[in-house]
Amino acid sequence: MLQRIDHVGIACRSLEAAIEKYASVFGLQVVSQEVNESQGVKEAMLAVSSGSAAPFGGYVQLLEPLADDTPVGKFLAKRGEGIHHVGYAVANVTEALATIESGGLVRLIDSRPRHGSMGASIAFLHPADLGGVLTELVQPSHDAP
Amino acid sequence: MLQRIDHVGIACRSLEAAIEKYASVFGLQVVSQEVNESQGVKEAMLAVSSGSAAPFGGYVQLLEPLADDTPVGKFLAKRGEGIHHVGYAVANVTEALATIESGGLVRLIDSRPRHGSMGASIAFLHPADLGGVLTELVQPSHDAP
Repeated sequence: MLQRIDHVGIACRSLEAAIEKYASVFGLQVVSQEVNESQGVKEAMLAVSSGSAAPFGGYVQLLEPLADDTPVGKFLAKRGEGIHHVGYAVANVTEALATIESGGLVRLIDSRPRHGSMGASIAFLHPADLGGVLTELVQPSHDAP
Repeated sequence: MLQRIDHVGIACRSLEAAIEKYASVFGLQVVSQEVNESQGVKEAMLAVSSGSAAPFGGYVQLLEPLADDTPVGKFLAKRGEGIHHVGYAVANVTEALATIESGGLVRLIDSRPRHGSMGASIAFLHPADLGGVLTELVQPSHDAP
C-alpha cells in the first residue's frame, strides 16, 4: 500500500528562518511554497535529492501555523518545534483509506481525501492508533515536481 | 549533501507490538532486526516499497529502549511514543560532518561516525540547532538490503 516515504512534516515558528536553515546547512532548495487555509498553515516543500537526474528522495515539509488555534499552532504550544508527522505516498488515497478503515485497526482523521501540498490528495490517520505517529497518506499530483 | 530520506525513527514501548501494527495495517515487512547496545535500543527496519523491483522508498525504523536511562527511554518518559528522529542518506558521513562542522550553524552530537543499523555509518546532529529535529546522517553499507 505504501510506496515510499513522501515527506517528513516539521512544525516551525518561522517558515522563513526554517527555509534559510535547511538551505544553508544542507543546501536544500524550495520546490513549492503555498498557504493552505483549510489546514491553517503556510508551508514549503524542500526536495531531498542528490541531483535532478537522481531518483526521488522525498521532501522536507516545513509548516508554520497561520494562528495559535490551528493544529500546528497547538502542536507548537504543546511540544515546541520539531517533527510533526510523516507522509507516505500511495497510488490511490481513496482506496488506501477504504482498506485501512475495513481493517478496523486505525481510525481515520480524514474519511475522504482533501487538498494537500502541490496538488496532492491527502488524508491523515489517527496517531493514537499508530504509536503516537501522525501519519499522512499522499497521492501525489501528476504535475508535482 | 543529503541524497534522500533514509528512514524515520519511531520510539515505541514494544518492538513486537509495533512491528505487528505496521505489518497488519500497512503490510510493511521487517528487513533487519538487531540490538544496538551502544545506542541502548533493540530495533527493526521495515522497508517502505511498492515491490522488490521498485526504487528505494525508505525505512520505518522502530526503536524500543533497552532501559529507561537510554536516550530513547528518556524520550518515551518525556514525550511518549512517536517520531524520534529522521535519517538522511549521505555519500560519505565523515565528509558531511566536516562540512557541517565548518559551517558552524549546527552542533554535532557525534563528531565521528558510529555504528548504525544494517552496518551503516551514522552520526547525529543536535536538534536544538535544527528546529527541534533530531537529525541523523546515514552512510549505508554496500551490503544493506
